[in-house]
Amino acid sequence: MQYGYFDDRKKEYVIETPATPLPWINYLGSQEFFSLISNTAGGYCFYRDAKLQRLLRYRYNNVPADIGGRFFYVKEAGKAPWSPTFHPVDAELDAYRCRHGMGYTVFETEKDGLAAKLTFFVPIGETCEVQQILFRNRSDQEKIFRFTAAVEWCLWNTVDDSTNFQRNLNIGEVEVEGSVIYHKTEYRERRDHYAYYGVNAPIAGFDTDRDTFLGTFGHFGNPQAIRTGKTGDFIAHGGAPMAGLGLDVTLEPGEETSFVFVLGYGQNPRDRKFLSPGVIRKDTANRVLEKFSTDAAVEAGLAELAEYWNDLLGIYTLESSDAKLDRMVNIWHQYQCMVTFNMSRSASYFESGTGRGMGFRDSCQDLLGFVHMAPERARERIIDIASVQWADGSTYHQYQPLTKRGNNDVGSGFNDDPLWLVACTWAYIAETGDWSILDHPTPFDNGPGSEAPLMEHLRRSVNYTKTHLGPHGLPLIGRADWNDCLNLNCFSEEPGESFQTTGPSEGPVAESVFIAGMFVLYGGQYAKLCRHLGLNEEAAEVEEAVAKMVETTKGPGWDGQWFVRAYDAFGGIVGSNSCD
Amino acid sequence: MQYGYFDDRKKEYVIETPATPLPWINYLGSQEFFSLISNTAGGYCFYRDAKLQRLLRYRYNNVPADIGGRFFYVKEAGKAPWSPTFHPVDAELDAYRCRHGMGYTVFETEKDGLAAKLTFFVPIGETCEVQQILFRNRSDQEKIFRFTAAVEWCLWNTVDDSTNFQRNLNIGEVEVEGSVIYHKTEYRERRDHYAYYGVNAPIAGFDTDRDTFLGTFGHFGNPQAIRTGKTGDFIAHGGAPMAGLGLDVTLEPGEETSFVFVLGYGQNPRDRKFLSPGVIRKDTANRVLEKFSTDAAVEAGLAELAEYWNDLLGIYTLESSDAKLDRMVNIWHQYQCMVTFNMSRSASYFESGTGRGMGFRDSCQDLLGFVHMAPERARERIIDIASVQWADGSTYHQYQPLTKRGNNDVGSGFNDDPLWLVACTWAYIAETGDWSILDHPTPFDNGPGSEAPLMEHLRRSVNYTKTHLGPHGLPLIGRADWNDCLNLNCFSEEPGESFQTTGPSEGPVAESVFIAGMFVLYGGQYAKLCRHLGLNEEAAEVEEAVAKMVETTKGPGWDGQWFVRAYDAFGGIVGSNSCD
Repeated sequence: MQYGYFDDRKKEYVIETPATPLPWINYLGSQEFFSLISNTAGGYCFYRDAKLQRLLRYRYNNVPADIGGRFFYVKEAGKAPWSPTFHPVDAELDAYRCRHGMGYTVFETEKDGLAAKLTFFVPIGETCEVQQILFRNRSDQEKIFRFTAAVEWCLWNTVDDSTNFQRNLNIGEVEVEGSVIYHKTEYRERRDHYAYYGVNAPIAGFDTDRDTFLGTFGHFGNPQAIRTGKTGDFIAHGGAPMAGLGLDVTLEPGEETSFVFVLGYGQNPRDRKFLSPGVIRKDTANRVLEKFSTDAAVEAGLAELAEYWNDLLGIYTLESSDAKLDRMVNIWHQYQCMVTFNMSRSASYFESGTGRGMGFRDSCQDLLGFVHMAPERARERIIDIASVQWADGSTYHQYQPLTKRGNNDVGSGFNDDPLWLVACTWAYIAETGDWSILDHPTPFDNGPGSEAPLMEHLRRSVNYTKTHLGPHGLPLIGRADWNDCLNLNCFSEEPGESFQTTGPSEGPVAESVFIAGMFVLYGGQYAKLCRHLGLNEEAAEVEEAVAKMVETTKGPGWDGQWFVRAYDAFGGIVGSNSCD
Repeated sequence: MQYGYFDDRKKEYVIETPATPLPWINYLGSQEFFSLISNTAGGYCFYRDAKLQRLLRYRYNNVPADIGGRFFYVKEAGKAPWSPTFHPVDAELDAYRCRHGMGYTVFETEKDGLAAKLTFFVPIGETCEVQQILFRNRSDQEKIFRFTAAVEWCLWNTVDDSTNFQRNLNIGEVEVEGSVIYHKTEYRERRDHYAYYGVNAPIAGFDTDRDTFLGTFGHFGNPQAIRTGKTGDFIAHGGAPMAGLGLDVTLEPGEETSFVFVLGYGQNPRDRKFLSPGVIRKDTANRVLEKFSTDAAVEAGLAELAEYWNDLLGIYTLESSDAKLDRMVNIWHQYQCMVTFNMSRSASYFESGTGRGMGFRDSCQDLLGFVHMAPERARERIIDIASVQWADGSTYHQYQPLTKRGNNDVGSGFNDDPLWLVACTWAYIAETGDWSILDHPTPFDNGPGSEAPLMEHLRRSVNYTKTHLGPHGLPLIGRADWNDCLNLNCFSEEPGESFQTTGPSEGPVAESVFIAGMFVLYGGQYAKLCRHLGLNEEAAEVEEAVAKMVETTKGPGWDGQWFVRAYDAFGGIVGSNSCD
């Protein structure tokens, strides 16, 4: 079923109905501040870490799906409210279009002669989401309405936020100044950061307490404050803090008006947190709010964003006879690769962003897709990745983006991991010609003093595979290879045990033909790096090991018709034509 | 504000409006199967462990609050649906009453001449919740309606269920046989338990997939299956599995009918899990469904429950001139104490039941309230608690009910903890005269081979306090005393650090006058135990230490007007008349 189309000229996916079976989301942001936004404006924002520094409360697996964390309401006197993003009110709209573009999302909707255009983007170099809202009266009558924009705050750590109620129902704190609501939970105690939501116009009223805003049995589809037109104008202490900003608007027929909202993250030096006792220093917020206080500034921000993406996407361009292939290669794949670089699958609608952090294997692979667009950042990423490698050449399977340390709960033993480090380093050098990366001092397991040139990390990666071969001479699979589900050494019987990590990380028998293939490819690349560096003896040794692996793969790795997939912990064959 | 009243004769709290500011909940169950149920039938069930074996999906901090995991709908042709428990439809009712009684909850509601009575309880000795639903046509016209009862399954581990979507959206499995829906996620792989929801009447249709049941943008207040009268009759694979049972009912004026639903937990021997490939063995479910297939059986179950509670509450009775005091002491406090014994605050609407398990201190204290009602179970609990004590006399602060092992993430160092073990043991002996408990071989930190008589555990508790005194001779507070928030040795500066466990568990300076008071009381009790056992020398030593503590408390523990609360890590006084 077709819910929209791709506009090649504008590089936008256009969704023509809010009734998509699953939310269709875009990812905004390219440096430190990221927003997820669906085709009904659901989603959340975070600063650098989706678990620890989340701005908006988002409920996964919610019913209905995709309600929150952004809420917009239009209410004319005597009429039922509606949302210019369809959710949360779900009132039928006379027109609806959502455009997911390169780093921005636009909604164009209309009801009863009132047209709305909402543009969302994370400006280059800023830690905020800008929301521009335009209204145009297309009817022949004066329109008088209350427009309310609201967000529900996450109390920063999203895991704690969704489990520790005896604490988090008591700690919410906000501050209101003019048309800006500041979320400052734990700021007094031990945070130097706050969130804010403000608008470039005088407000008619505000809400900072969700229960007051919603009323008894209230839900975001039908808040009391919207129904009655009465904001709480109340400073929340504890409970569920939110930021609701109410604006009274009058539009003559044909008239239009606009507002710019900024949803941002601000940070202060530890010793200069307060302006006066209890009053937070708002320099960051003030500067950003001031910067985006006009439509011209929004246009400039969007233009800068467009230029950023044009530059990135202009580096590599394919012109083929197939428009769809061109679009896929020139726009969509490269865009997705940059998103994956930013998020590394740690935050989405299915990865809740609450635990696993970034994958070692994932991050290496993703790099192949963006290295030509962001070579400096790719270099930095390679060093980060290599720094979670262990001294024996194995690696942590995951690491946390904020601390850059490996995850102990999953640990090591995914035996394809080490070779991916060769893959991404090779790709980086092939793209940039920057051989100096091989000299970069890089620690093992982030241990100060353990630094060795990156080349030494690659060496240990290759050696790890070379020295971990099974009975057929194929690489031992450990906990799994690229197919995460091929957990041949893991025998989980008890509920709650991990299928991936229960059992030895190093089984002595189970072998992976996939890793054999990797060794042929990346071992060969490593040998070429050796040759370039004049390490001819080492190159020859590796080449010999690679040649042997080719033979082994053609031997026990080939069943006469198929490449075998693996041998299990009992020596049994997996993925052969001889299998049932 | 008054939302109801207590009916002393029936021992029931009667709530007369669904519009209570917070859900008013009852706790059902007394052995292994527990249900939380609010005055709108919200809540969840679990078997033994609220985190690992949860039957119903419940969303904490939900909007609106208290939607799920039980859903009931009545739909007459041509009329809007309504819920006889008010939620989730929220249609205005002509009559509403909820009665929270001793181990059961009853709803009596009415709309448009159709009266409903819903009774919920967990039968003695069974691992299920029984739901009896009675309808009576009070109008003068025939009533034809579809009644639908539904639950949403939790995929057992509630933490995984609410975070690991890339997995749990793919694993849901159900089976349907007659009028029973079986939830069997992970049963094939590594569980020997399943959940079921069935009714003692033929069904008109069923739903096992939430998205099918609700429809696009659907919510539990307005499911597609209810609106259209069309069940999905679809076997879920993955997604969000649920159990919806639709019954077609026709009632003449004045006529009434009833249905009995059973929501249960079943378990099989590991080697006899399947009846045939893919078909689970249903012996437990069948027996229980058969047992509660008639109204007479429900009445018998309720009578047994009433007798159970009459017996428990009949053990101690107060007759004073104050009816409210009598009610409090004779009914409500004792009921609450038994609930606390069962749950030990690990599961409620505010403790999400996902992490902390049971508190050492809490469990010791709670025992004082129920020891006279359940002395055998109190004895067992004391041994469980003492088994998480460390060899040095300190203890884990929390432990898990299923494994009975201490929680490493919180660890030890709450220096009031050890003395509570004396408190509860003393209370047990005082109530029962069962001195033999002091001889019970009890391990330290659950270590096999480390068993020592319980008396030795009490000795180490007392010695721990005696040997951990600060500069004023008062007991060192460690991480905190009974006031969890008095974390005098904890200096948390980074977000995400625990206020309770960041810093040394043993500070050399900060002292607690509260623990001094505990030592006076429980040290004295311990000395009496020594005297009884003929350990006169030890008794004298302890009595001397207690006498000295009395003097110390009157010295540096008394500021001339107040008992001081504590001394902080810098020797500064806390809670004195000299404090600002």
